[in-house]
Amino acid sequence: MQYPAPIAHLIDSYMKLPGIGEKTATRLAFYTLDMPDMDVHDFSTALTEVKQKLHRCTICGNVTEQDPCSICSDPTREKSTIMVVEQPKDVMAFEEMGEYNGLYHVLHGVLSPMDGLGPEEINIKSLIVRLQKQDNVKEVILALNSTPEGESTAMYISKLIKPAGIKVTRLAAGLAVGSDIEYANSITLKRAVQGRTSI
Amino acid sequence: MQYPAPIAHLIDSYMKLPGIGEKTATRLAFYTLDMPDMDVHDFSTALTEVKQKLHRCTICGNVTEQDPCSICSDPTREKSTIMVVEQPKDVMAFEEMGEYNGLYHVLHGVLSPMDGLGPEEINIKSLIVRLQKQDNVKEVILALNSTPEGESTAMYISKLIKPAGIKVTRLAAGLAVGSDIEYANSITLKRAVQGRTSI
Repeated sequence: MQYPAPIAHLIDSYMKLPGIGEKTATRLAFYTLDMPDMDVHDFSTALTEVKQKLHRCTICGNVTEQDPCSICSDPTREKSTIMVVEQPKDVMAFEEMGEYNGLYHVLHGVLSPMDGLGPEEINIKSLIVRLQKQDNVKEVILALNSTPEGESTAMYISKLIKPAGIKVTRLAAGLAVGSDIEYANSITLKRAVQGRTSI
Repeated sequence: MQYPAPIAHLIDSYMKLPGIGEKTATRLAFYTLDMPDMDVHDFSTALTEVKQKLHRCTICGNVTEQDPCSICSDPTREKSTIMVVEQPKDVMAFEEMGEYNGLYHVLHGVLSPMDGLGPEEINIKSLIVRLQKQDNVKEVILALNSTPEGESTAMYISKLIKPAGIKVTRLAAGLAVGSDIEYANSITLKRAVQGRTSI
């Protein structure tokens, strides 16, 4: 015996989401069945609209409804600095921080040969084109995750850009604020010591 | 700064699912953005169809596309036994077991005064009506979960049905097959001793 087709279909769809196996998908499908009609309708609409209405900004690659995105088209933003990030979520994190007033460039991933992600698969080429067109860029901040893939992507981009005489920086590595030395790994400690500052 | 409206809308929808908070919802929304168009379209369709095409069987309460459901309308099923379960998923579990050939009755919940779930909120009334109409029912098996709510719902239904002279049984309680005595709780052990069988 099998679940009725509409339930089976919905279980399959939930299973395509990351971290959701068959048991969770089944639970979510039956939960959906008991949700108010309006909520399920909204959910269904949200799914189609996210694909129809959102696009990548042709300048920075961030997801946006209008093109160029609100940051690229904002005349008050400092055009001389571009912060390179992995994901649209990272843009949001820096915008919430509120101190940064430059532009962004979203790679949509990092170099990861194991996963078949080379320079062509992520949004690097458009960064180079952008730097060639916009000759007022003075600094590129590589704000990539502190993972092996993030580090090697940063090195790769740095080598491409530096010959053009643009300053390339990366985020400081060290202890997270509020964290314990006891629990920090040795690479983090090494970076924290190397980058020590006077007080 | 906020996420573009279509993303924010989808995050809200994901957050209505059980066990999904804002961080996970955000991760799922961005993941959805990168999914193939076809998969997202299927997902959206599955959501609307699960609400449009599925209904409760007017006899047993199980979710079904046709009414009565395939089990209630199957002439080879034994009509003299009704197994009362909490959820449609439980019907599936017993059907996968394959030994049971009687009918079902799905309560869609258990009595839980703390959550405002009284006898009117779950599918009990239709069970009583069903037993009054169908005078050939000889046994009602209360296959409810071994939780305080499941147990008290079983007691409640048992008291309603027994006066009609119908045999009421419940599932055996004891050690799960493959489990360790060491890790069993004392109520389970007590039930296992009380229900010991000769070998």
